Amino acid sequence: MNQQIKNHLETLNSLLDEIKRYSHCYALMSYDRETVCPVNAQENEGDTLQFLSAKVFAITNSDEYIACVKYLHDHIDELETIDQRLVTLLYRSYLDEINITPEIDAERNKIYTESYIAWIKAKNKDDYSLFAPNLKKIIAISDKIISLRQEKSSVPYDNYIGHFEYGMTSERLDNFFESLKNRIVLLLKKIKKSDVKIRTDFLTRKISIEKQEKFSKYLLDLIGFDFDCGLLGTTEHPFTSEIGYKDVRITTHYYEDLFLSNVFSVIHEVGHAIFGQSELKEYYDHHISNSMSMGMHESVSRFYENRIGRSKAFIHLIYPKFHEMFEEFADVSEEEFYAGINVVTPSLIRTEADELTYSLHILIRYELEKAIVEKKVTVEDLPNEWNRLYTEYLGVTPTSDKVGILQDVHWTSGFGYFPTYAMGNAYNSMYFLKMNKEFDVMKAVEDGNIAKVTSWMKKNVFKKASLLDPDDWIKDIVGKTLDPEPYLDYLEEKYSEIYKL
Amino acid sequence: MNQQIKNHLETLNSLLDEIKRYSHCYALMSYDRETVCPVNAQENEGDTLQFLSAKVFAITNSDEYIACVKYLHDHIDELETIDQRLVTLLYRSYLDEINITPEIDAERNKIYTESYIAWIKAKNKDDYSLFAPNLKKIIAISDKIISLRQEKSSVPYDNYIGHFEYGMTSERLDNFFESLKNRIVLLLKKIKKSDVKIRTDFLTRKISIEKQEKFSKYLLDLIGFDFDCGLLGTTEHPFTSEIGYKDVRITTHYYEDLFLSNVFSVIHEVGHAIFGQSELKEYYDHHISNSMSMGMHESVSRFYENRIGRSKAFIHLIYPKFHEMFEEFADVSEEEFYAGINVVTPSLIRTEADELTYSLHILIRYELEKAIVEKKVTVEDLPNEWNRLYTEYLGVTPTSDKVGILQDVHWTSGFGYFPTYAMGNAYNSMYFLKMNKEFDVMKAVEDGNIAKVTSWMKKNVFKKASLLDPDDWIKDIVGKTLDPEPYLDYLEEKYSEIYKL
Repeated sequence: MNQQIKNHLETLNSLLDEIKRYSHCYALMSYDRETVCPVNAQENEGDTLQFLSAKVFAITNSDEYIACVKYLHDHIDELETIDQRLVTLLYRSYLDEINITPEIDAERNKIYTESYIAWIKAKNKDDYSLFAPNLKKIIAISDKIISLRQEKSSVPYDNYIGHFEYGMTSERLDNFFESLKNRIVLLLKKIKKSDVKIRTDFLTRKISIEKQEKFSKYLLDLIGFDFDCGLLGTTEHPFTSEIGYKDVRITTHYYEDLFLSNVFSVIHEVGHAIFGQSELKEYYDHHISNSMSMGMHESVSRFYENRIGRSKAFIHLIYPKFHEMFEEFADVSEEEFYAGINVVTPSLIRTEADELTYSLHILIRYELEKAIVEKKVTVEDLPNEWNRLYTEYLGVTPTSDKVGILQDVHWTSGFGYFPTYAMGNAYNSMYFLKMNKEFDVMKAVEDGNIAKVTSWMKKNVFKKASLLDPDDWIKDIVGKTLDPEPYLDYLEEKYSEIYKL
Repeated sequence: MNQQIKNHLETLNSLLDEIKRYSHCYALMSYDRETVCPVNAQENEGDTLQFLSAKVFAITNSDEYIACVKYLHDHIDELETIDQRLVTLLYRSYLDEINITPEIDAERNKIYTESYIAWIKAKNKDDYSLFAPNLKKIIAISDKIISLRQEKSSVPYDNYIGHFEYGMTSERLDNFFESLKNRIVLLLKKIKKSDVKIRTDFLTRKISIEKQEKFSKYLLDLIGFDFDCGLLGTTEHPFTSEIGYKDVRITTHYYEDLFLSNVFSVIHEVGHAIFGQSELKEYYDHHISNSMSMGMHESVSRFYENRIGRSKAFIHLIYPKFHEMFEEFADVSEEEFYAGINVVTPSLIRTEADELTYSLHILIRYELEKAIVEKKVTVEDLPNEWNRLYTEYLGVTPTSDKVGILQDVHWTSGFGYFPTYAMGNAYNSMYFLKMNKEFDVMKAVEDGNIAKVTSWMKKNVFKKASLLDPDDWIKDIVGKTLDPEPYLDYLEEKYSEIYKL
């Protein structure tokens, strides 16, 4: 590496070091805001967050920074692998953001913030018309930002999905969701006709929050959450936040009469957390940490939540403890419990959906997002379309906006995120097959040896996630790109057994 | 105001706006660090805190900033009162810090951090020799920093105390503590001879932490903590943190067998918090918020803790609730409870001291601090001196360093803070007399009308605290400067009644 490249790399790294510190503050304050921040202090925290954003914006839009990124991109072949990755990622952002002026940036942030507030109000009042004007603004600013990109696709939706899952296209997604739709809708029809009656009376039994908290901690320990590098907080909407190096915090919610909502939200978030807690120090040092795609991240969280958490083996593992802690479930057998947590009930709310119908909720959002960005549906018509698709694919019809189009927060900051949830399911079924060839995964889970599973995940799934684009990453693990069939095979096998199809 | 002054003020304010944002991040991250931050994330938070300090340091040491402060100080008579105060405070800091190079600043921070870590280790191992080398470094860096000040006193300790309580001198403090010593030691002797036997068996009864938490919240509500502008967290050492505008957070600790430790730590911190939560918006806007002295702050926290919290009227007020919540105290009468929480027991640990002997703990630290900075005692001899003074003033002799010289954290960052605790007691007795002339304070407390008391405090005590130096502030309230007599009269009256002297 010649001296000039070294100098540029050094300058770039010192600017990124600065960004890292601002981002650390930003992440912690955002976490505070969503967890414990007093209501009257929210505004001041908002102002400080904006200050921090502006600091980062000033660096990434400085001549010095841009010159470094461009120079290093021109000499990318002369860099080490990890710096090649860094420069690739920065150059992509540069192309996306270079024409965004501070004014447009401020406008975008303002629209997002106002839309979020409007969405909360609209949801509380169960009135889509209070959110519709904001959604129009979101669409307009999204169009504008994409139009300003240095490089863009002529297929509108590709610009959205590619932002979250590099290399993914509408064409590939159409095929992907077509497979999902065909086999899941068919499977759902068979299940509806099944004579098997699954006991569900216990699913809504009251469990004190204190007990749920204790059980959460038990699950975190069991699965391998590292409390020295993270913690568990409480919020209405569970999330995982990578605050900084060795600091990955998760949250959950507790509903007295929806105990399982807590259990599976915890297992889901612990999946995200283990992924984050396993991130290599050298990735932090080289500023590429946590640059894995959303599809990768969801593949891991859903792996822990569904492939492990909702498996017979896992239920067998936790049942003794479960019985010991909850006299409320004394009359429920292990088999009844396993069937109960896997009961298929087409419903209106995505976040409470069962494992099978979950992908249909995503499919609906995918179709609507495409229709929005292709201007094939108006903002006014969206609720009707939403309800029509729920009726068609799930056989249930929303009775109001709150349990329909207003249920998710995602559209308050644009489009393209939802499909990553469904991709995650497909990815993890692909690598589950590979793992299961190397050792009996369910046997390890049943034996309580989840460390063995996580160890495999670290070596095969986590290690290169921040280093590779999604297609290269999944090819590196299993030798091929996104394929829904292993996931659909798994669903078919699992539910055929439960429902005796 | 001429245009040039306006321009300078504008420039200064924009720099202070920036500092305010960094300080907001700093305060939140420090709070996080002391409350919930995972152990392995501490180092990274430390690095970010250092980054933020360096940002502030760079601003306050910039030519632009210094030019503004000097120019405005030269034209101070032409400014509005609130800006006069701002410029006065900034100019003082400028004189103190102007010769501190970034290297000395880094050295100072390093010594503080290392000393803190050494102190924890030494305390845990009950071994003063592990802390002594750090204490030497603290003394050396303190000497160095004071020697670099633009303006300093020839009386060594004045430079220390003046930093925390502007205008206070060793000479004034000597007189102040002499009065305290004479009357309190005498009172203590009488109490020891008293025949009154105070029941204390219930003070160490086990109370579940859950119940203590509930009672804490009851007390916060009763006294008037504003949960929209703050929250209650948990730490080993309780503290209050002014995170930012409308965000004052307090912490407490819970010991199962020391219930009262929680109760009075909560009432003490809520005093600090109400002071902070009452801070005027215009003080934030003019960058002078929370510039009240430590003596003022302690006067308020101790006012709520002792004058209200340990009063007969307050115990009468809370007793019905207390009896309802704690069957553990069913056999304890209101009178027994009041006497029990006011029992005088000379002891080794300052933070658990009773109201009467508390000031003697401070007196001992004051005498030792003076001896240290006047080089009249060596670091090696300090523990002996400590133990000698405890024996002389309190009649108890530390059995080890942990319950002796290693008990407090304060010396890990220098000297001069301790006396403010005792001044606080004296200040609040002075303004209590004034308040009590205007209305019957204890009657208001007994009636549960603490809002009336706080309202008086806001108008008389809080309002100008950030605007005035301590002497001017107390003169503004009661017409004279620091005087220990009202405090000593109060103690004499209170304990004469309890102990029938």
